[in-house]
Amino acid sequence: MSEVHVSRRTRLRDRCAASTAHDGPADAVLISRPANVRYLTGRAAPGSVLLLGPDGADTLVSLPGEGPAHGAHPADDLRETVLPGDASADVDAVVAAATLAEKGGGRTLAVEEHHLTVARHRALGTAAPSLRLADLGPAVEQQRVVKDEEEISALRIAAEITDQALGELLESILVGRTERHLALELERRLIDHGAEGAAFPTSVATGHNSGLPGHRPTDRRVEEGDFLTVRLGARYRGYCCQIGRTFVIGTAPDDWQIELYDNVFAAQRAAREALGPGTECREVDRAARQVLVSAGHGAGLGESTGHGVGLEIGEDPRLSPAAMGKLDACVPVTVEPGVHLPGRGGVRIDDTLVVRPQADGGPELLTITTKELLAL
Amino acid sequence: MSEVHVSRRTRLRDRCAASTAHDGPADAVLISRPANVRYLTGRAAPGSVLLLGPDGADTLVSLPGEGPAHGAHPADDLRETVLPGDASADVDAVVAAATLAEKGGGRTLAVEEHHLTVARHRALGTAAPSLRLADLGPAVEQQRVVKDEEEISALRIAAEITDQALGELLESILVGRTERHLALELERRLIDHGAEGAAFPTSVATGHNSGLPGHRPTDRRVEEGDFLTVRLGARYRGYCCQIGRTFVIGTAPDDWQIELYDNVFAAQRAAREALGPGTECREVDRAARQVLVSAGHGAGLGESTGHGVGLEIGEDPRLSPAAMGKLDACVPVTVEPGVHLPGRGGVRIDDTLVVRPQADGGPELLTITTKELLAL
Repeated sequence: MSEVHVSRRTRLRDRCAASTAHDGPADAVLISRPANVRYLTGRAAPGSVLLLGPDGADTLVSLPGEGPAHGAHPADDLRETVLPGDASADVDAVVAAATLAEKGGGRTLAVEEHHLTVARHRALGTAAPSLRLADLGPAVEQQRVVKDEEEISALRIAAEITDQALGELLESILVGRTERHLALELERRLIDHGAEGAAFPTSVATGHNSGLPGHRPTDRRVEEGDFLTVRLGARYRGYCCQIGRTFVIGTAPDDWQIELYDNVFAAQRAAREALGPGTECREVDRAARQVLVSAGHGAGLGESTGHGVGLEIGEDPRLSPAAMGKLDACVPVTVEPGVHLPGRGGVRIDDTLVVRPQADGGPELLTITTKELLAL
Repeated sequence: MSEVHVSRRTRLRDRCAASTAHDGPADAVLISRPANVRYLTGRAAPGSVLLLGPDGADTLVSLPGEGPAHGAHPADDLRETVLPGDASADVDAVVAAATLAEKGGGRTLAVEEHHLTVARHRALGTAAPSLRLADLGPAVEQQRVVKDEEEISALRIAAEITDQALGELLESILVGRTERHLALELERRLIDHGAEGAAFPTSVATGHNSGLPGHRPTDRRVEEGDFLTVRLGARYRGYCCQIGRTFVIGTAPDDWQIELYDNVFAAQRAAREALGPGTECREVDRAARQVLVSAGHGAGLGESTGHGVGLEIGEDPRLSPAAMGKLDACVPVTVEPGVHLPGRGGVRIDDTLVVRPQADGGPELLTITTKELLAL
């Protein structure tokens, strides 16, 4: 793994030496966004920042008391600096890193203006006044979009864990249990099967809550005749996947339930089938959206119908009407259209897939739990 | 509750009309930090921001698809604006709120520079160019330090829930179970007893992991003779409490375990007894610290030995050597010294207490689980 991280850092350095987002070349780079630090170092080290110094040395700067960085690789040529425990509380890791860059003879330091707060940015400028500060922009986020096979393999395992946890739940009695308890049980099962944790708070929504985007589990109990929407995902080696399924409780779904389910299913399939290298992101979104709009469900649609996944659950690219850019091969994305009818309930179907060329068989479905409308 | 929020907003307005942190008076205020938005509105609305407008109207600006704001009070005179679903992804809630302030005739808008990123701050300035931007500084955080009795009552319930969850765990068999499973079980019990969720990720550390600050549960199993440190807290109506306890597994603790436990216990008691209105925060820290330094455990000490709690688990005041300022009555804080001996393990004892004058009986202990060294 360590060579991978060295080469990621080298790519970033080369890019910054050529030019940053808005402010010309930079001879030093400060990475503060946690997922970016992890991507470039392999370390999950909360509060730590990474300096690509002007002298060619890469240094991970950590605050005291954060505990040791996880996943250190002795073969990696990354220096590690822990600030002394008696450092003033005002000296945070970004300030210490900027000071280090200045001491190393840096002239222009590229920083993540989309992550640094105004207050930290000012503190950094004050602590290292001879440095010119430039905006790195989302350079690391862009580097993260296309995954290597090791990253995809972590995602594949995350998806397997997620499918297992969901499959076990489906074998248990659901009627009478609360959304909160079902969500907790799913999260426990994720851990049981080897996840580091949940990739995001598990959402379980039943009855009139079903299909609500971002629904947080309540004390509502599952009842006969309910739609039940479940959305969960495992985090494995830092990588996050997502699955969403909708079930009906009892024996025979109502006609409106069958119709709504069929619509969302058709929309989701259309978007999945639209995935391919070179496809515009907004075309994928449109594929799902137009099915639902023609079925009269345009009003209930959210802002996007999918997004990239990786070290964060919501990454580039976005699959939305306003999205710019095209898909590449080896980009994992979710496809997750959903409709909620206020007062009645709704349907969500989410998959995580990897974009692959047709020659390789087309999109690779990672979350393989059935998408038939199961009556549980 | 709604009157409480109106009066909190009025206090903030009055303060900003007089002066902001660095930049003179402001006739409009934009609150973006989620816990501050919740404090001033009673709404837990992720992604929403609050504008105290130049026309005297208070508006909660929300992004589409975030779901309805929880806890709305019809009697409150708060306006609510949800951005249209087809708004460009680049228009976020702070930009929309700044535009609203400009349209309302605002001249100076105070913003939370310690929360806004450089990129959002710039977008806001571009969207509303006639506004002068000032720094609000941590004005709302300062307002949040002293709690009213309703807030303390929520904390008291959070602490009861936490004590119950911990108490039940102590009655079960621990040997052979992993840190991860124990942590999950504690979190489930928090929910069972009525918590909204865990106030922070539950930490369970056993054997050589015990006493590590911020330890994340692993697959290590509890063994005979281990120290077991557990740190958890419920969130109730948004309010977060914290308890930490250390146990020994098996029948008879070793001498080094008894000695270390007694030292940490004495340090924790000294800090608890030092709590009082008018006491310097660093004096409370020193009370704990000097006990451990004299016992030869100065090296293992963290940066602080306690902190405020409320809508966030880590709030002002800090109890640390560098802390400025004095305690007030009705300020809830944690007292949580701990020592970790590398390769062996350690002890942490954390309580949540409310600072009260001696005339009212002195500090009010919220987390009442015993601090005897129990052998489980």
